[in-house]
Amino acid sequence: MKSAFENISRYITDLYKAKHKESYAAWLQYTKIDDQAIADKYAQWCRNLTVLGDSAVMESAKKELIQGISSMLGILPDSCSEPQQSGLVLAVKDSIGDLIDVDFNYLHDDGYSIKTVTSGQNNTIFIVGKKDKGVLYGTFHLLRLMQNRKNLKQLDIIENPKNQLRMLNQWDNMDGSIERGYAGNSIFYKDNQFTQEHNRIEDYARLIASVGINGIAINNVNVHQEETNLITSTLLLKVAEVAGIFRAYGITTFLSVNYASTIQIGNLTTADPLNSEVQEWWKEKAEEIYSYIPDFGGFLVKADSEHRPGPFTYGRNHADGANMLAEALQPFNGIVLWRCFVYNCLQDWRDRSTDRARAAYDHFKPLDGQFHSNVILQIKNGPMDFQVREGVSPLFGAMEKTNQMLEFQVTQEYTGQQRHLCYLVPQWKEILDFDTYAKGKGSEVKKVVDGSLFQNRYCGITAVSNIGNDYNWTGHTLAQANLYGFGRLTWNPDLSAESITDEWIGQTFGDDQSVKELVSKMLLKSWSIYEKYTSPLGVGWMVNPHHHYGPNVDGYEYDVWGTYHFADWEGIGVDRTVKTGTGYTSQYFKENADMYESLETCPDELLLFFHHVPYTHKLKSGVTVIQHIYNTHFEGVDEAEDLVETWLQLKDRIDQERFDDILNKLQEQANHSKEWRDIINTYFYRKSGIKDELNRKIYL
Amino acid sequence: MKSAFENISRYITDLYKAKHKESYAAWLQYTKIDDQAIADKYAQWCRNLTVLGDSAVMESAKKELIQGISSMLGILPDSCSEPQQSGLVLAVKDSIGDLIDVDFNYLHDDGYSIKTVTSGQNNTIFIVGKKDKGVLYGTFHLLRLMQNRKNLKQLDIIENPKNQLRMLNQWDNMDGSIERGYAGNSIFYKDNQFTQEHNRIEDYARLIASVGINGIAINNVNVHQEETNLITSTLLLKVAEVAGIFRAYGITTFLSVNYASTIQIGNLTTADPLNSEVQEWWKEKAEEIYSYIPDFGGFLVKADSEHRPGPFTYGRNHADGANMLAEALQPFNGIVLWRCFVYNCLQDWRDRSTDRARAAYDHFKPLDGQFHSNVILQIKNGPMDFQVREGVSPLFGAMEKTNQMLEFQVTQEYTGQQRHLCYLVPQWKEILDFDTYAKGKGSEVKKVVDGSLFQNRYCGITAVSNIGNDYNWTGHTLAQANLYGFGRLTWNPDLSAESITDEWIGQTFGDDQSVKELVSKMLLKSWSIYEKYTSPLGVGWMVNPHHHYGPNVDGYEYDVWGTYHFADWEGIGVDRTVKTGTGYTSQYFKENADMYESLETCPDELLLFFHHVPYTHKLKSGVTVIQHIYNTHFEGVDEAEDLVETWLQLKDRIDQERFDDILNKLQEQANHSKEWRDIINTYFYRKSGIKDELNRKIYL
Repeated sequence: MKSAFENISRYITDLYKAKHKESYAAWLQYTKIDDQAIADKYAQWCRNLTVLGDSAVMESAKKELIQGISSMLGILPDSCSEPQQSGLVLAVKDSIGDLIDVDFNYLHDDGYSIKTVTSGQNNTIFIVGKKDKGVLYGTFHLLRLMQNRKNLKQLDIIENPKNQLRMLNQWDNMDGSIERGYAGNSIFYKDNQFTQEHNRIEDYARLIASVGINGIAINNVNVHQEETNLITSTLLLKVAEVAGIFRAYGITTFLSVNYASTIQIGNLTTADPLNSEVQEWWKEKAEEIYSYIPDFGGFLVKADSEHRPGPFTYGRNHADGANMLAEALQPFNGIVLWRCFVYNCLQDWRDRSTDRARAAYDHFKPLDGQFHSNVILQIKNGPMDFQVREGVSPLFGAMEKTNQMLEFQVTQEYTGQQRHLCYLVPQWKEILDFDTYAKGKGSEVKKVVDGSLFQNRYCGITAVSNIGNDYNWTGHTLAQANLYGFGRLTWNPDLSAESITDEWIGQTFGDDQSVKELVSKMLLKSWSIYEKYTSPLGVGWMVNPHHHYGPNVDGYEYDVWGTYHFADWEGIGVDRTVKTGTGYTSQYFKENADMYESLETCPDELLLFFHHVPYTHKLKSGVTVIQHIYNTHFEGVDEAEDLVETWLQLKDRIDQERFDDILNKLQEQANHSKEWRDIINTYFYRKSGIKDELNRKIYL
Repeated sequence: MKSAFENISRYITDLYKAKHKESYAAWLQYTKIDDQAIADKYAQWCRNLTVLGDSAVMESAKKELIQGISSMLGILPDSCSEPQQSGLVLAVKDSIGDLIDVDFNYLHDDGYSIKTVTSGQNNTIFIVGKKDKGVLYGTFHLLRLMQNRKNLKQLDIIENPKNQLRMLNQWDNMDGSIERGYAGNSIFYKDNQFTQEHNRIEDYARLIASVGINGIAINNVNVHQEETNLITSTLLLKVAEVAGIFRAYGITTFLSVNYASTIQIGNLTTADPLNSEVQEWWKEKAEEIYSYIPDFGGFLVKADSEHRPGPFTYGRNHADGANMLAEALQPFNGIVLWRCFVYNCLQDWRDRSTDRARAAYDHFKPLDGQFHSNVILQIKNGPMDFQVREGVSPLFGAMEKTNQMLEFQVTQEYTGQQRHLCYLVPQWKEILDFDTYAKGKGSEVKKVVDGSLFQNRYCGITAVSNIGNDYNWTGHTLAQANLYGFGRLTWNPDLSAESITDEWIGQTFGDDQSVKELVSKMLLKSWSIYEKYTSPLGVGWMVNPHHHYGPNVDGYEYDVWGTYHFADWEGIGVDRTVKTGTGYTSQYFKENADMYESLETCPDELLLFFHHVPYTHKLKSGVTVIQHIYNTHFEGVDEAEDLVETWLQLKDRIDQERFDDILNKLQEQANHSKEWRDIINTYFYRKSGIKDELNRKIYL
């Protein structure tokens, strides 16, 4: 049975690859190079391939090069045992010998050097890493250059990733569903079993390794009954198989664990972190896991949050809980990724003193210095929950003695659910570049999470993945760009949104200049467009409860989740000031606290996140709040319609399937944006009684 | 397997009967008579029982009497083959002979006479029906008197039901769920099979027969895939078993059918009612059904409504659809119950000209005279959907040449879902007594649906049942009163709410006078209390979408269901006038049309159902609309809290289980009523900016 099942799974993957070639290949298209001059140039390096060193990762690099070269150039490189007069050479520190000079002191474990060496008849490109993973990253770098038709003649590249941990979290459940998944079902699980869809998983590994991802947690942070069993022997065998696939691409496998595992599967009556039986159980469990997966990454934990169990039950704090797990993992160099998404999800909407935005800081800040060195706090970018716009979490930089990791959400829970185009790289850039002032000016979030600000032992960036088993991986084909861009930013947060976008388009749709220009424009404007017709001035949460799709201004207003806008006949917004509100602004370092506290200096786009103001309050832009709401909603729809028009200009410049798929999505978006516009405008008109100055159609 | 399954089912029923005796027995408690004087008097008639006539229904009557007598008096009546000097005699027209004189010309088929005959030593109570069903109803009548400790000495009762069809609709699905069910799962189905819980079904039959119900549709009007198969041979065998149980209690079984059955199970490509193959298929199907169930009642049909298929697909009207089925059933005296709940459920909220309230009248009124004589239009009491308060459907009386049946909802979808106490008999009384003016003054709804106004061939009252497999049948124990009261009103709509309530309490909780007084007060006030804290002035629909529980003022406001309140900063309500609104008022006969059209004469409780007014509009009660909203919401909570206090006074006067169950529900209600109060008051304060004159706490 299993074998038949496996065959079917592979067959489906093959079918996708064949039938939906371009959609499935994403940014690893390796399109045939039509420009013969370029092809000829590339060919001089591509006929001979020498791989010095032997490992699964080196093998992956070699396979990828052969696939890329044969697809782009139509030639099959000769595999040589030693460097030829011209060709490609892959090597690690231990195998490069005197062939070329590389500054290995500068290189990190994941870093690499790419060098074109030309002397007389000799013409060779060397890709050298300190370790094999560096070689793999260098290989993908070279292929990226080739896909973008760059000149390879004088390459002298040396690259290290800025972040040590560059991770993805799969919110996949074993029944095959994906929490907040908008691109089909899980590629890992189906009907409470592993899918055995190894080809598909390998292709996913290729995609994410190509942008530098080096860690993955393969199950949902909400660990339900079935997934609790992932750390038991039967399933560990299967986890090990998946880990093997990822390992060959330099990716370490993690598991989300149920904090109450000792009770659920351990036959203990407690999960108290200070209980010695509990501690012992986890130590033995860790040993067992590492016997299956020697390079297992560690545990991702959502505890005491949204009805998940945690140390609070036992009167312990989160340091107690995280450290207990960390001690179990420590002998194996495993780490604990402990999520800070902890808040009261049974709040009384009548209580205006409690502020969910405060929760993570209030819970964790007092514990600074108490976490073991192999614990990392995983902090969502904002204090609420991946809204279209919210403040940056004040926890970043606030815990000098604690490892911190930034969590983004590539899956578009609140940003259009991969039915609307919302390219998130510009948002992520803003967040990464946000100056926390933790150690004075220049203490950007990216420096907190890359460890440079406080010299942390572990650090990095992680995100909730947006992929599923749809033939194009991401539902909306253009949402592939979010996964790509996320990976690239984890590698180097200093890359500009524009350059990431350009290189993605080149690889995904080829080097047609008009495609590049138009698609780039669409992507780079899309977050702003989505913000315009959904969430004005940082207000957030005006969505339908539970599934979070579509407008519902009061959807969460009288609910327990702590997510309110407090709109009345006079005004709107959450007063989070120290002076008259919840005091949340005080959680920031002084420069930011002052900026947000004052109506004068608080930026427009976050005004309603920090202040409750009358509809007639005048923004820095010169218009009133209510007029801003109307304006942006009309503009947002116009711009969503423009996206369709822009895309239509690309007809016949993009393969039919992707052109049609994207067109359908953009049309759906344009339609749905009208629903947003009309509901929000009507809601605020009905509440404020203030007319649109431009007299546009607002339904009564 | 089946037999084991059956045993388990019966075991569960037995367990309920034993463990939850009082809760399960509902109003058929047959509590031991403690007053020895009364017991002795009753005993003189109860030692001998003579049943003249032989049928399953007579057998049920006999069984019930034996159970009631033995339980109340502790004696087992002798079964005699002919009348004794004293005793009880059950007989039908054909078997009564000259024993007593009964005016059979006056009696309908379901009618009965109960007479105490005393002459010398002879002392006999006769229960005589024209047919056996009448005897059964008379038997339950006598038992009701005994349960209420009435004097039986000079009985001379002659009763006919006012309504010919007295039905219940089970919205049970074969997977065991019940649409809008709030009392556990189905007693009929589980896991897509029949439950075989025959004891339980029989007890249900006893309960509803005791109040005169004579028809039941045993599956949901939304007929999904599994239930479509109910009219196929395998399942018809099972339907026949259930029909057999009901038949012994004078209850005819109906099925809800999928209008597109010809396509789904008939191998045809159409369900066009004018297509001869379709017509033939249904004729053969009817023949097949009647071969299993010779007294099958007919079909209940929800067509062209809420995504159900119907004749509209084929450009036919509802007369075409209903008549086609009626022709198939006609040879077997079967009838079609055709629901008028047809409206556009994909309405654009921006379109204020479309009014869902108009839909049934607009669809059906033009078809008057076109329906076959064995079609009955089943019309919900109001034009919307079982709201706490809405107008009466203007269809009643508007179709002189068409059979009409009134549909109530005993299950409390919008009236507290059997977690809040909401006794609906007062509401139903208002509706039944509503004067349509169809033939001038005195044309009450009850006279339309009992057939007397237009001399219809078929007529009656039906309702969606509120029972499930909870041990007390109805979730909230006091909700049993709704089922009881509904049945009694179908028998005689002229009964007062007070008398129905009294007799129910007597049977359910015994003849403790303080219990009677307090419970009666609670029940009779409960609809008004629920209305106060939920839906002011007929506004309706301020509930959470889909499940319809709990407050959500804008829950349906920007949705497709056509259920809006249009609240803005100035006012609220739906303008349904002819002069400035949707013209819905014109669907009523002149007297009512004029009354509703005018702000001056429109009753307060329906003001916002018919008019859009400013919050400052002064009601006939003298307060403004906004102040009325505040007042009723504060009062409603106070009164909900009073319910708890009242109930607490009954401690030790009611068995522990029912006391506790009801107390828990009342406490839940009191708490939840605060949520209603606060959300609604806050919503309207935030919208209007108008303060409560009495300065009570409204959250900002």
